[in-house]
Amino acid sequence: MKNVLTFGEMMLRLKPSANNRIVQSNSFEASYGGAEANVAVSLALQGDSATYLTKFPDNLLGDTALGTLRKYGVNTDQILRGGPRLGIYFFEKGASVRGTTVVYDRAGSSLAVSKSSEYDWKNIFSGIDYFYFSGITPAISKELQTAVLEACQYCKNNNIQVVCDMNYRGKMWTPEEAQSFSKKVMPFVNICLVHDEDFEASLGIKSFDGDMSRGIEQKDSFKKAMKQVSELYPNCHTVASVLRNIYSVEDSKWSALMIRDGEFYESPVYQVHVYEGVAGGDAFGAGLMHGFLNDFKGQEQVNYAIAASVLKLTIGGDLNLVSESEIRDVMKKDSATAMKR
Amino acid sequence: MKNVLTFGEMMLRLKPSANNRIVQSNSFEASYGGAEANVAVSLALQGDSATYLTKFPDNLLGDTALGTLRKYGVNTDQILRGGPRLGIYFFEKGASVRGTTVVYDRAGSSLAVSKSSEYDWKNIFSGIDYFYFSGITPAISKELQTAVLEACQYCKNNNIQVVCDMNYRGKMWTPEEAQSFSKKVMPFVNICLVHDEDFEASLGIKSFDGDMSRGIEQKDSFKKAMKQVSELYPNCHTVASVLRNIYSVEDSKWSALMIRDGEFYESPVYQVHVYEGVAGGDAFGAGLMHGFLNDFKGQEQVNYAIAASVLKLTIGGDLNLVSESEIRDVMKKDSATAMKR
Amino acid sequence: MKNVLTFGEMMLRLKPSANNRIVQSNSFEASYGGAEANVAVSLALQGDSATYLTKFPDNLLGDTALGTLRKYGVNTDQILRGGPRLGIYFFEKGASVRGTTVVYDRAGSSLAVSKSSEYDWKNIFSGIDYFYFSGITPAISKELQTAVLEACQYCKNNNIQVVCDMNYRGKMWTPEEAQSFSKKVMPFVNICLVHDEDFEASLGIKSFDGDMSRGIEQKDSFKKAMKQVSELYPNCHTVASVLRNIYSVEDSKWSALMIRDGEFYESPVYQVHVYEGVAGGDAFGAGLMHGFLNDFKGQEQVNYAIAASVLKLTIGGDLNLVSESEIRDVMKKDSATAMKR
Amino acid sequence: MKNVLTFGEMMLRLKPSANNRIVQSNSFEASYGGAEANVAVSLALQGDSATYLTKFPDNLLGDTALGTLRKYGVNTDQILRGGPRLGIYFFEKGASVRGTTVVYDRAGSSLAVSKSSEYDWKNIFSGIDYFYFSGITPAISKELQTAVLEACQYCKNNNIQVVCDMNYRGKMWTPEEAQSFSKKVMPFVNICLVHDEDFEASLGIKSFDGDMSRGIEQKDSFKKAMKQVSELYPNCHTVASVLRNIYSVEDSKWSALMIRDGEFYESPVYQVHVYEGVAGGDAFGAGLMHGFLNDFKGQEQVNYAIAASVLKLTIGGDLNLVSESEIRDVMKKDSATAMKR
Amino acid sequence: MKNVLTFGEMMLRLKPSANNRIVQSNSFEASYGGAEANVAVSLALQGDSATYLTKFPDNLLGDTALGTLRKYGVNTDQILRGGPRLGIYFFEKGASVRGTTVVYDRAGSSLAVSKSSEYDWKNIFSGIDYFYFSGITPAISKELQTAVLEACQYCKNNNIQVVCDMNYRGKMWTPEEAQSFSKKVMPFVNICLVHDEDFEASLGIKSFDGDMSRGIEQKDSFKKAMKQVSELYPNCHTVASVLRNIYSVEDSKWSALMIRDGEFYESPVYQVHVYEGVAGGDAFGAGLMHGFLNDFKGQEQVNYAIAASVLKLTIGGDLNLVSESEIRDVMKKDSATAMKR
Amino acid sequence: MKNVLTFGEMMLRLKPSANNRIVQSNSFEASYGGAEANVAVSLALQGDSATYLTKFPDNLLGDTALGTLRKYGVNTDQILRGGPRLGIYFFEKGASVRGTTVVYDRAGSSLAVSKSSEYDWKNIFSGIDYFYFSGITPAISKELQTAVLEACQYCKNNNIQVVCDMNYRGKMWTPEEAQSFSKKVMPFVNICLVHDEDFEASLGIKSFDGDMSRGIEQKDSFKKAMKQVSELYPNCHTVASVLRNIYSVEDSKWSALMIRDGEFYESPVYQVHVYEGVAGGDAFGAGLMHGFLNDFKGQEQVNYAIAASVLKLTIGGDLNLVSESEIRDVMKKDSATAMKR
Repeated sequence: MKNVLTFGEMMLRLKPSANNRIVQSNSFEASYGGAEANVAVSLALQGDSATYLTKFPDNLLGDTALGTLRKYGVNTDQILRGGPRLGIYFFEKGASVRGTTVVYDRAGSSLAVSKSSEYDWKNIFSGIDYFYFSGITPAISKELQTAVLEACQYCKNNNIQVVCDMNYRGKMWTPEEAQSFSKKVMPFVNICLVHDEDFEASLGIKSFDGDMSRGIEQKDSFKKAMKQVSELYPNCHTVASVLRNIYSVEDSKWSALMIRDGEFYESPVYQVHVYEGVAGGDAFGAGLMHGFLNDFKGQEQVNYAIAASVLKLTIGGDLNLVSESEIRDVMKKDSATAMKR
Repeated sequence: MKNVLTFGEMMLRLKPSANNRIVQSNSFEASYGGAEANVAVSLALQGDSATYLTKFPDNLLGDTALGTLRKYGVNTDQILRGGPRLGIYFFEKGASVRGTTVVYDRAGSSLAVSKSSEYDWKNIFSGIDYFYFSGITPAISKELQTAVLEACQYCKNNNIQVVCDMNYRGKMWTPEEAQSFSKKVMPFVNICLVHDEDFEASLGIKSFDGDMSRGIEQKDSFKKAMKQVSELYPNCHTVASVLRNIYSVEDSKWSALMIRDGEFYESPVYQVHVYEGVAGGDAFGAGLMHGFLNDFKGQEQVNYAIAASVLKLTIGGDLNLVSESEIRDVMKKDSATAMKR
Repeated sequence: MKNVLTFGEMMLRLKPSANNRIVQSNSFEASYGGAEANVAVSLALQGDSATYLTKFPDNLLGDTALGTLRKYGVNTDQILRGGPRLGIYFFEKGASVRGTTVVYDRAGSSLAVSKSSEYDWKNIFSGIDYFYFSGITPAISKELQTAVLEACQYCKNNNIQVVCDMNYRGKMWTPEEAQSFSKKVMPFVNICLVHDEDFEASLGIKSFDGDMSRGIEQKDSFKKAMKQVSELYPNCHTVASVLRNIYSVEDSKWSALMIRDGEFYESPVYQVHVYEGVAGGDAFGAGLMHGFLNDFKGQEQVNYAIAASVLKLTIGGDLNLVSESEIRDVMKKDSATAMKR
Repeated sequence: MKNVLTFGEMMLRLKPSANNRIVQSNSFEASYGGAEANVAVSLALQGDSATYLTKFPDNLLGDTALGTLRKYGVNTDQILRGGPRLGIYFFEKGASVRGTTVVYDRAGSSLAVSKSSEYDWKNIFSGIDYFYFSGITPAISKELQTAVLEACQYCKNNNIQVVCDMNYRGKMWTPEEAQSFSKKVMPFVNICLVHDEDFEASLGIKSFDGDMSRGIEQKDSFKKAMKQVSELYPNCHTVASVLRNIYSVEDSKWSALMIRDGEFYESPVYQVHVYEGVAGGDAFGAGLMHGFLNDFKGQEQVNYAIAASVLKLTIGGDLNLVSESEIRDVMKKDSATAMKR
Repeated sequence: MKNVLTFGEMMLRLKPSANNRIVQSNSFEASYGGAEANVAVSLALQGDSATYLTKFPDNLLGDTALGTLRKYGVNTDQILRGGPRLGIYFFEKGASVRGTTVVYDRAGSSLAVSKSSEYDWKNIFSGIDYFYFSGITPAISKELQTAVLEACQYCKNNNIQVVCDMNYRGKMWTPEEAQSFSKKVMPFVNICLVHDEDFEASLGIKSFDGDMSRGIEQKDSFKKAMKQVSELYPNCHTVASVLRNIYSVEDSKWSALMIRDGEFYESPVYQVHVYEGVAGGDAFGAGLMHGFLNDFKGQEQVNYAIAASVLKLTIGGDLNLVSESEIRDVMKKDSATAMKR
Repeated sequence: MKNVLTFGEMMLRLKPSANNRIVQSNSFEASYGGAEANVAVSLALQGDSATYLTKFPDNLLGDTALGTLRKYGVNTDQILRGGPRLGIYFFEKGASVRGTTVVYDRAGSSLAVSKSSEYDWKNIFSGIDYFYFSGITPAISKELQTAVLEACQYCKNNNIQVVCDMNYRGKMWTPEEAQSFSKKVMPFVNICLVHDEDFEASLGIKSFDGDMSRGIEQKDSFKKAMKQVSELYPNCHTVASVLRNIYSVEDSKWSALMIRDGEFYESPVYQVHVYEGVAGGDAFGAGLMHGFLNDFKGQEQVNYAIAASVLKLTIGGDLNLVSESEIRDVMKKDSATAMKR
């Protein structure tokens, strides 16, 4: 069995209960999530071997985050403990014309203040075949940029595939900073996920006109941009991208494109009634990785990944709590009609 | 006033709170339901006289199930007490492309292990005009098949109308078993409800191509199948069927057909935003029975029944907690617009 | 900074939790609201100066209603305390074809039994520029009709603008009573909000055919009716109206018209997935007032007001808990797509 | 089987969830209760035949109150429907040194504004053996005083036993009013419950020094007062009284005295950790009545009644949701230790 | 590090929320527990290596039970999957004089219907030093009695210590059955936990007079009975017993005795305000095992075990969610006073 | 009316719902509190004029904290907005022998990183008579130490009374740091609150033997220590101290001592069943200040303050949500017995 290591930050997520706004709520639903943790959990639930690397504080919140990963079958042996705090983010779900509001409270977290020297890559990568991170990790701190680059160098030297989901976060760094880092890291990347505005913000490549209400209509621009990525970075054998039309907080269409070993693959388009429009990209990334780990053909891989992604949009929290068979149900016609009893 | 007796199993239903999946939930919403109990409650709330027959364990859960029936006005005098346990089912509501998941935990229930000899039909049917059961009851055990057939024989001898909702459950028996039982029971049935895949699974009659996303488009196949039922079983003066287009867990269209005394009736088509897609058929059955009990004409009857059915889809739990006047509101144009204040 | 005083009744609102019907619920979500209080809170949250006038009982419920207003920045210095009780209303949210049910329990409230002599208008109106009330206030009691008329007379004498949202409530008075009062009060009104059936019920003017599922299609009838109002009452320099197509409890389209100083303004049309279809008109009124208080041009004013209105429909409770910048986000294209993080 | 009719007001009870004060709560737990309804439910759950008489509004709240009674097996056939509203009371549970706060909102209820002429006693009392009411019912309105007196007269003429729990409520009437009514009704009363300050407030008889923290220490004064009652009203063959030491909201001791047919009975003293200190007197009354209905000897009767009473203090809501066998468990030594499994 | 394997049944536990009785509750708090699972979780949280053996159904409930164990660090590699269902138990917490009510719904569970041949002891016991089970496991089925005896025989042959907590359950088997099994298993047992009525019910040894309200007062009888056990079964080097005075559901005193290698040890007595009086014995067992695994001296071991036990009584659910350092805090004077901040 | 300004940090408090530990909870109850904010709210609710000074981030959490203060009547005009985040603390309520656990997550808050130069004392103190802060404020940062000292100097120059509650927090600074700061600030302090270990940790004065389970027994040591404070700092005309016996998380006794203008006052001792053992000292401080603001005599003042304090222990959250009349109820004998209805 092949092994994936993902590296990033898992936070406590606090969501006002019962669709309230923060100002009217006196309770929060608590869950735990973060891009790379989401990917690790997805993989473990789909039967793959996934190890998660981060640093958690040595307190009750760190214990709970770690327990959550363990519950879903993620290997937590490499996780560092210590430092000041667990990052938090407040998630106020929008509705209809009111967009979802995220209040980050992640500064000064145990991961954010960790030193690159704390990561003993040789030990960490023992037995690992894929190294997965998103653009959020280097956006957290300079030290983590160093750590990621050191990890990539180690991977290159040891034939470990490097996977990067660009995942641009405008509240964490500027396009200039993101692009400057991308220039350094992309030569190591073998599999690149890049969606929506990430092309432009993270890579400086114009992919579409920025109107997320009609990403699917701009498939051709996306294809061009994806091709450009794979040409710029010849080590990058796969580039994949989710395309979306977003009509409102609840209503959207999702689709995906992938270029793998030079060939284009295009998924079906799903009409989705979104329960929580978060972590769909991570679910897509995990679906894609599941394809690599289980030798899916290109078309099956992209179809599987987008089905995993839309399934995530029906589930509360950041984690895509589904099995491979549930993903395959979505790939079949009429899954929603079948209440089996 | 005419009296209906319904016979079947009422279970404790456990639904993860706040749209969670079971694995992420630490609380369940508890309610009580089961096809024939749902029908009895609907009738009582619509002002009819309904008696429910089942067997409940003599413990706190049996007491609560019984109290629930009483709360909504059902006559519970015939209910047997004793036996090992109350059946349970876990209801994990789906969303969008993720179908609803039902985990049955009903084996070994007090009803399931009851003996046919425990049912003293002469006493039970005293004063009863209609006997209503669904295909779930005989699917529970051989003893209950015997009990149902004995009850039907008693009804035939005593001019009590027999009503059967075929209600095929693939997790409980095979099509072969269902059809074998149907052959025995259908000669007694005067009013038959049969929807979707029930035609084929329970009666061995091909009604439609099995695609629940476009049942309404296949009205003609359904009509043909319904006609076939009424010809095969001449005692069966009424055959009714719900037709559905199901686009996703939330989105569907509902309509109904009825053949009564040789004449076809067709309801309007409702576009429904589904809150819980469960027990719509039972609500339809109760609506139909309300029509018989109150001498509705055929067209009014089928229109009323389908309105009752779509109203159920807006309510949590298995019970259709509405009055006749609320059903009639739906039958009027613009009911949803009218927040009366 | 200009100051607005609003005058009316704030009630305890009790809504069954978790989308239950009242009969199946054993808990209620509690909030506080009422047309004019909603307007005052909206204005305060948008940065305007708003004072609310009412009478609350001198008990724990009155304290809590008052604290709620204070929390959101409303000036509560003029509120009277005493009398028997706080009005209550039960709000059972509908779904799809099942309309929302409101059970009023407001009779005998402290405001309802207050005397017109308790309102010392000279003191109350000190420093006030706008007096805002809705048709609900005079519908509560004869004494409040007297109070409103005395207040209007005071405003006229002191150059305070009078704003009235007709807000007809069929459970509180008859069209005859409403129209008889309107004849007395309209000569004082400078700004008149009048929606849907209000034209006919409150003013005796036929605006549309009464079908709320297609108000937007009847824009021309509305325009004619609005013109008629402004011609009948020359002091009334502004008439504004919300137009709606309501397809189901969740689905509707919202738009607005305004005639101001003889010129017509027409807002864009919003497609809305409604979370709670209540207090949208109050949010519109507050948006309109915000325009007057901040010297918006007519087109900006009506666009802003309708955006405020549709934003309200996404929020639980009666209060439009949004800031000016959040309203402006809705006015931009694609607001819902932007989860900023 | 003997039949009891109880007559009084059942209200919606709203209790802030999670031990909150009203001002900090945004949800209320809803239940239904009222002295005489509590007694009827207790009796039904103990296997007796109990009918409840009241008037409920014809709305969703009236339906729910009625369904609650039905759920627990109370006969609701005599309940009148109509009138303005269901009474409400807010229950803010205290803790330790902070007393429980009750905010009544019961004025103008359907029962409160009912006319004595609405009660057709001949029909209502058909088949009834005991008529049970508390001092709360006549405290509600003059009409209800008339109704109660007419009912008592009917009982006297028809050999129906009259039971009155004095239940003085200082927020509803004055001692003068209560005593003036008592003078009229006591000659009809056969069984009289009178606790704590009721002796003085309702009957003008000094029973103890008013210090509820040491009622049990004043047993002798109570005995004297009880004797006085039975001498003043020779028809009154039984007088029973609960004695309490109340140390804090959670901590108290409960005991009971009864004089029946001239003989005194004294129950054991229970040390109780109180969960909700409400309706303990009603539970006592129901326990006492259960004794009369099932021919308990005096000592068993008073022991049973006080055990029922302290059991109530462990249960949330106004209703004593226990069976006879659970009451008998308390009467045994060590009941609390026995978690049977 | 030494390894412990525990073997038994973990069930879904359903507890009415907010201290409700089952009949008044419409939601349940869900957790997972069972004697031997509780021990495994305790050990893992105290830093020991614990493996749990059971059989879970291959459905969403089995997944969740398994995830719960994993979350707390238990090794789940040996757990069998398949079979009909997960056992359930309803837990209605008592209060004061009202005892806690447990409704078992565990018949027909996957473990209960498992065959002894499914347990491959050689593989299961690889690397294991201690085998821990309670008397509940053999009470479930004859097959499990066989399985336990085969396991014990394997342990004897392979120098694995056998630990048995007698844990008599009167709802599962009779004293005769329990004693008959004990005769077979006790010769294998090296460490025996036996509390309260277990001496008599499981071993046929009279330990005390059966009055759980004064177990601590009967220390000497317990000592005698413990001595008797160790003399009857010479392989049994350690016998430990919890002694309790139980005054009410909330109030009790806890203490412990141990005879180890012929010497008696006696813990301090704790006065406890009980939050949930369940699984205290399992916490004690885990504390004792922690002592063996970490070479505690006898006195430290029994002090530690009783502190673990009383800590459990302060936590909801069956699992003792505490660390070694939290247990040591209790062993210090004044732990409760120290809110560290 | 005299005006009090309090200065400190208000945090979001997150408490696992339903008595869960953090690791088993998936929701948190949210409230807002902090020593000096608690005092300001208490004063406002008791009818005094209180202004609160702090710095809140300009986000939804800052808005909500501010709204909470406003709700309870605190003047928020001086509050600064901006900076990175709102401090958070997790509050895991203990039970019995398990102490309450507080996890601070307050580093880097908007207040913590504010500069002393941001506080324009002249403007802030306009109209203020009393300046109230606790030892927590200077423990947050060096800048806040400077700010506090500058404020004290301003007060001295302008005849504003300075009140300090020593409130030592061992997780925030060391005794050495605290004492070093105390040396600088105490010469300015006119009213000093100092409890338990504060004497030693903050002032270097030995008050008692450190055993919080018997503070009340050591009254004489406390008196000596208080006297010492008032002699060391002659400006300090009042020293007050709460004395406690803490038996468990729920059980304690509370009492108070005050030396004012050279005279000792001693309150009664209250036995308290504690609901939440937090902010009792702040409630005491507010009670004391209420006495100064309303010219209470010494004995009334200390009696009132301790009653306010024990009342707080019965309420969830940090805020003492009570009125003066509710405090006076506690001062009377038998308050808990009186459920007024």
